[in-house]
Amino acid sequence: MLVLYHFWLSPFARKIRLALAEKGVPFELRLEREVERRPEFLALNPAGEVPVLVDEDETVVADSAAICEYLEETRPDLPLLGATAAQRAETRRLVGWFDGKFNREVTENLVGEKLMKRLNSQGYPHAPAIRAGLANIHYHLDYIAYLAERRTWLAGDDFSLADIAAGAHLSTVDYLGDVPWDEHPEARLWYARIKSRPSFRALLADSVPGAPPPPHYANLDF
Amino acid sequence: MLVLYHFWLSPFARKIRLALAEKGVPFELRLEREVERRPEFLALNPAGEVPVLVDEDETVVADSAAICEYLEETRPDLPLLGATAAQRAETRRLVGWFDGKFNREVTENLVGEKLMKRLNSQGYPHAPAIRAGLANIHYHLDYIAYLAERRTWLAGDDFSLADIAAGAHLSTVDYLGDVPWDEHPEARLWYARIKSRPSFRALLADSVPGAPPPPHYANLDF
Repeated sequence: MLVLYHFWLSPFARKIRLALAEKGVPFELRLEREVERRPEFLALNPAGEVPVLVDEDETVVADSAAICEYLEETRPDLPLLGATAAQRAETRRLVGWFDGKFNREVTENLVGEKLMKRLNSQGYPHAPAIRAGLANIHYHLDYIAYLAERRTWLAGDDFSLADIAAGAHLSTVDYLGDVPWDEHPEARLWYARIKSRPSFRALLADSVPGAPPPPHYANLDF
Repeated sequence: MLVLYHFWLSPFARKIRLALAEKGVPFELRLEREVERRPEFLALNPAGEVPVLVDEDETVVADSAAICEYLEETRPDLPLLGATAAQRAETRRLVGWFDGKFNREVTENLVGEKLMKRLNSQGYPHAPAIRAGLANIHYHLDYIAYLAERRTWLAGDDFSLADIAAGAHLSTVDYLGDVPWDEHPEARLWYARIKSRPSFRALLADSVPGAPPPPHYANLDF
């Protein structure tokens, strides 16, 4: 069986968990504490970061973008990128938006500061970063609403890796209760559709030791 | 003809320029000042960032990773990722290393602080960031040497997008004269091979107004 190394609330590992579940590929999840810098893990990924996937033939794939492309190539049923080169480009652009821009402007400022620093014993949250994250998220929720009003799913007619990447990041911020859903009803409608997919169930059952999620986190009617 | 929007010393735009040149695809280069936030450019890429590629059929592709995958799909001759899924995964892992880790730990701390802030009127360089960049680069040059001692090119037997991404980032730091080549002879040997490729010529001819490169920048025997 495939093995996926992850860490609590890593949005990049969540993206892979969702992609594997959407493709119907069973996998074993292993918790990796990156800060421990375990030699066996560094041998799998010299960058020392989750997610890392180990395939059944022992092929090791590190870097979440590389893992997604690898899964599309080796498990082409139920494609998550799109049918044409132009559609795949649009899907990848949006994955890049959430994994790059959203991660830098929102996820790292909120989940990184408020939770990861504590879990990794890396000091105290930086208040200006948290304020920036809480301000930036509105702009991203507006963009999700803009896309969701014009398309069935974020990248076009079909559910895709763009929805998965966006859902992975938002789910980690939602775990903190920091997504202002009330002010963004269109984005909430899109997220409710994502959240009710079977692939999301395992994420909603997650609980970080010492930091349980708020009640609405796993509620499909939030 | 393809059009590529770029900005001086953007390592991500340089990656695309090298990939297009390696594939022998002619293109027109257009300078885009991201900070101006030109509405016509934001219509091409709402993230407001270079590179953006406009194909001959008007397909617009934004995000450098999306552009690379798009070029591999639409111009499959002279592939830059590798022949097998496992090889492509290794190439993409290393591209992620340089575009993610190296960019965050080195490029942004040096090129970002010392040059981009000035070009974009974004204030003064942050001295601790520069010190961090100058310290971090040794670790990355050691990793390049480690790979180059064991493989013909960074990702394996063939020249690939991993070499291109690494070369794109290092070339921008080298433009500042901040690569300690003397202390890293193995990395220097690898870079000398990259630098002598015809695809690199246009990059070596670049000159940023008001910030000319040091003499060794374009010298193949540096």
